[in-house]
Amino acid sequence: MKKAKLADLKQTQIHDAFWDRYTHLVKDVIIPYQWDAINDNLEGVEKSHSLMNYKIAAGREQGEFYGAVFQDTDVAKWLEAVGFTLAAQEDKGLEERADGVIDIIAEAQQPDGYINTYFTVKEPQLRWTNLQEGHELYTAGHLMEAAVAYYRATGKRKFLDVMRRFADLICDVFSDEKNNRAYPGHQEVEIGLVKLYEVTGERGYLEQAKRFLDRRGVGENYFLWEEKQPKFRRIFPEFTDYQTVYSQSHLPVREQKTAEGHAVRAVYMYCAMADVAAAYDDEELLNACITLWKNITTKRMYITGGIGSSGLLERFTTDYDLPNNRNYSETCASIGLALFGRRMAQITKNAAYMDVVESALYNTVLAGVAMDGKSFFYVNPLEVWPQNCIPHTSLDHVKPVRQKWFGVACCPPNIARTLASLGEYVYFYDEDTVWVNLYIAGRTTAQLADGSVEVQLATEYPDNGRVRIKVNSRSARAKLAVRIPGFAPDTAVTVDGRRITEQPVDGYMVLPIGAGAAAVTLDIPLEPRVMRANPNVREDIGKAAVVRGPVVYCLEETDNGSNLPALYLDTDKPLRTSYEERLFGGATVIYADGGRMVTDGWREDELYAQKETAYQPQKLTFVPYAFWGNRAHGEMLVWVKENR
Amino acid sequence: MKKAKLADLKQTQIHDAFWDRYTHLVKDVIIPYQWDAINDNLEGVEKSHSLMNYKIAAGREQGEFYGAVFQDTDVAKWLEAVGFTLAAQEDKGLEERADGVIDIIAEAQQPDGYINTYFTVKEPQLRWTNLQEGHELYTAGHLMEAAVAYYRATGKRKFLDVMRRFADLICDVFSDEKNNRAYPGHQEVEIGLVKLYEVTGERGYLEQAKRFLDRRGVGENYFLWEEKQPKFRRIFPEFTDYQTVYSQSHLPVREQKTAEGHAVRAVYMYCAMADVAAAYDDEELLNACITLWKNITTKRMYITGGIGSSGLLERFTTDYDLPNNRNYSETCASIGLALFGRRMAQITKNAAYMDVVESALYNTVLAGVAMDGKSFFYVNPLEVWPQNCIPHTSLDHVKPVRQKWFGVACCPPNIARTLASLGEYVYFYDEDTVWVNLYIAGRTTAQLADGSVEVQLATEYPDNGRVRIKVNSRSARAKLAVRIPGFAPDTAVTVDGRRITEQPVDGYMVLPIGAGAAAVTLDIPLEPRVMRANPNVREDIGKAAVVRGPVVYCLEETDNGSNLPALYLDTDKPLRTSYEERLFGGATVIYADGGRMVTDGWREDELYAQKETAYQPQKLTFVPYAFWGNRAHGEMLVWVKENR
Repeated sequence: MKKAKLADLKQTQIHDAFWDRYTHLVKDVIIPYQWDAINDNLEGVEKSHSLMNYKIAAGREQGEFYGAVFQDTDVAKWLEAVGFTLAAQEDKGLEERADGVIDIIAEAQQPDGYINTYFTVKEPQLRWTNLQEGHELYTAGHLMEAAVAYYRATGKRKFLDVMRRFADLICDVFSDEKNNRAYPGHQEVEIGLVKLYEVTGERGYLEQAKRFLDRRGVGENYFLWEEKQPKFRRIFPEFTDYQTVYSQSHLPVREQKTAEGHAVRAVYMYCAMADVAAAYDDEELLNACITLWKNITTKRMYITGGIGSSGLLERFTTDYDLPNNRNYSETCASIGLALFGRRMAQITKNAAYMDVVESALYNTVLAGVAMDGKSFFYVNPLEVWPQNCIPHTSLDHVKPVRQKWFGVACCPPNIARTLASLGEYVYFYDEDTVWVNLYIAGRTTAQLADGSVEVQLATEYPDNGRVRIKVNSRSARAKLAVRIPGFAPDTAVTVDGRRITEQPVDGYMVLPIGAGAAAVTLDIPLEPRVMRANPNVREDIGKAAVVRGPVVYCLEETDNGSNLPALYLDTDKPLRTSYEERLFGGATVIYADGGRMVTDGWREDELYAQKETAYQPQKLTFVPYAFWGNRAHGEMLVWVKENR
Repeated sequence: MKKAKLADLKQTQIHDAFWDRYTHLVKDVIIPYQWDAINDNLEGVEKSHSLMNYKIAAGREQGEFYGAVFQDTDVAKWLEAVGFTLAAQEDKGLEERADGVIDIIAEAQQPDGYINTYFTVKEPQLRWTNLQEGHELYTAGHLMEAAVAYYRATGKRKFLDVMRRFADLICDVFSDEKNNRAYPGHQEVEIGLVKLYEVTGERGYLEQAKRFLDRRGVGENYFLWEEKQPKFRRIFPEFTDYQTVYSQSHLPVREQKTAEGHAVRAVYMYCAMADVAAAYDDEELLNACITLWKNITTKRMYITGGIGSSGLLERFTTDYDLPNNRNYSETCASIGLALFGRRMAQITKNAAYMDVVESALYNTVLAGVAMDGKSFFYVNPLEVWPQNCIPHTSLDHVKPVRQKWFGVACCPPNIARTLASLGEYVYFYDEDTVWVNLYIAGRTTAQLADGSVEVQLATEYPDNGRVRIKVNSRSARAKLAVRIPGFAPDTAVTVDGRRITEQPVDGYMVLPIGAGAAAVTLDIPLEPRVMRANPNVREDIGKAAVVRGPVVYCLEETDNGSNLPALYLDTDKPLRTSYEERLFGGATVIYADGGRMVTDGWREDELYAQKETAYQPQKLTFVPYAFWGNRAHGEMLVWVKENR
């Protein structure tokens, strides 16, 4: 099976009314902020020490390792975001800064190729003895991804070569000859190895990724075996009584039918499974991916593209268990879901995957970052009552306001790299087709087999459904495949003014363009939709959610008063949309008729009483879920009760 | 202020159609089962080792301490239940068995009076160094309560004297001279000391209880200070980053206005505050109790009398935070609430306290035990969906079926002692009045100042509201105060056939009886009530609960099909009650009209869609909440959606 290629970020620009407010943050705010974070130059922010750990490992500084066992990943993620950013736009100063960091990493590399400051500085004798918790392979994977991004952006090989040496070591240590049972406790290195293979052509890296996947869940569980070895040392007390399902090592990956365990681990693994399935033409493995994708998206996913229903252990639970106010729904997990869906779309050329990717990006991923780029949600519930989100309770993990950078941060840099690589989600191409997956204004140039194709996309989507695409093709065989969103089957497509009446194929309208110029338009209907959940989702029965295009809406206390669960939406009345320039830097707001439970007649000392319930009319104001919490501190609610 | 006395259990019998099914379990099932548990004679049940620990401490056996730091309390609670049981009915065999245990405890007592097998066998050098977690004083308190119960039942002094020696040691070690800042990490010894004072007249015990209360939350927190001492050793990793609010040591007890922290600790402390307030005529302390009671019962209590909204740390959270499916609502906490309310009623002679006590007993406490007496709920949510109560998730603590005895069990023995001492809830008395608080058939004899009064109560309450009380009084001044339930202000009272038209005083109808016989009747209206929660309880908006008398009802899957949240109750239609002989050994069932969301038209692969919601009629069957889970495994729901 052939995987479509991702857009080359060096040949791609994003300039979009909706996304620019976030994408500019990466270079202007997040990367500099993150730089200060990894250098411990921020006040009131938990110490990172992550660059210092590398300097100590490199012998440049004296001192002790500080931080979590995966502290190195903060540096890796910074470098990856820098790589993506430099691809879009040169910046000599930033590049010099990154080169300096790469020099330190190279110096921190051990003679045999090993890189990990925790196990180099603090526990050298415990290297590779605790894959369950040690995160060495996870950290390696992030460094590999960063090295590939940096190489692609700058053409500089140093970081890539450093990581090749480390990859060579990993391929040796975990070869079938030397340790034919081991695999990582937190999947990620598989993705990194595939990327290294893609840029270097070194098939051994791909093979090692496949080996890690194929060993998982086979025979005696490797992590339970590890625990019994004399050198094993528990790192995280909460992992005592380890459940193999937590790391998706409960079954061989091909036999896994439901999404289980830690959500980020799960989706990172599914990404690698898709990569390997494509590279090996492995139908069985691809079918496992399809089954898992289906389980997530039809049973275990929030309407916002959030995944991971349990606050405890940030994990999947059971089908239809989608509580709105205590779920984890980690930003990183939705990023992983988008990465998985993107791969599935690359392989299958089915736009339905991109429907979910779009929802995850426009809702949960964007909710993860404040509009000033300085604070972040890790946890993304669909209903928040700030007063009861208090520490040392079951809602300890739910934060009603975005949090500053953490000592070791996963979501913020993950958001940064996602925003910086947005072009990879918008466009795919192969030898004769350019796919347009998302309606984000910008441009790309794709090198098809017999010539390049330039695509320019102009739109105000998702506020406005009109999309104009100019194509300049030097390829006689060029086709443009534009995604018809699953929520808008009536999308009208024209080419050079002529209405296309063909049916889309797997959700893409495939337009023969050939050589020359063409003007394509889409008119995507964006009427607000009143959505209900499958009745098996017990938490959402009797409730509705308002969605427009890919954008899920919510009620905020600042617009609708407190006690949002006391409101109901009158779904018999029409919803009214209005583009509001002043709100959130420009946003489409939805107004609705509804009501509020009357609270008069309840004395403060009455908790339960034989009282009738009465409602009074109230207008409701819905704003995009991703934008919540950017104005006032207060309640938020996605699923609102409806009249019957 | 004078506290009414509790009924003398030796002068009291319970023979009640409703309660007998539970009370007989104590002697026939629970005490023997518990005996097997503390002797490790049960298969498939977690090891207890608690009696063995005493034997080791006594030098009778060799071996290591095993179990939790509070393992001793299992033995103490068994002895207390035995004491209450022997008061009602002689049993030489059981008494001999208890005497044997008491001999072991006496031998395990250290020369200075100290008793605690963990700190005697395992960590003798750490005695009293970790009051935050060590549970030494908590364990001492339970032993004191047991010793008092056993002494009252049998008249034997040995156990009482053993505990006096230990109490003397505690009064010395924690005197103002030797350690004027310490207090227990888990309140309970205060209750034990007050009881010891009540039977021995030794005022020093009362004074020590008061000192423990008055020191709490004053100045530098004792537990945080303890943590900094060289001998401090952390026992429970989850107590790292200790919150003083967890143990109600965040403020002086008199300044506490809201119920905070671990619910059982809290209510045990409030019990002791009430005891001390009464003994010292301490209005300020009593007012603190009133404020805390009000906060719980008007802001932080379930309609079932459950308390403690957070699964994590089994604790109170914030006003109106009453989630139905993830709360802890520990059985022990409701027992503690009943003990607190009973004391407040003894002091204030206000029946409103007993309304709450009655609700806690008939709902949460009884829900805690299966009808066969062999399995137990610790956690009492109001909505259970078994499929999603899975380990290693946020709902890890919610068990959809009652659990077998635990290695260290708090709730089962606590239920046993509550059932065995039920008479103490039913009747109070002082020099001229007998209070009848609960309508449970049986009899008591109370020694008033100028003669005894015998009260015989016959009723089929709560199934039937007719109560007949025969009084035989030798006291010329005798009065009978019968509680008019808060839910039934229209209760009709007659004395010797004459209808009483006076108004109740603080919820008690006070009937002058004098010497001689009298026949009193009450007719308590028991129409089912459709209750709503204060609209600030966000979880219950748009929902209703069905209650009859003190009994809260629920829907079970076995009667109503699966997906209970898809049901609604038509509150415009009448509810129909029916006494069903065959159900639960006889129970009043409530039938109602309602509906169910139609699920046709949703494909299995549709999670969210623009579909209309439709309902079809369905009859609903409500059964007492306390009885749920005694038939089939399945869903349960108290707060049901209602039509608007």
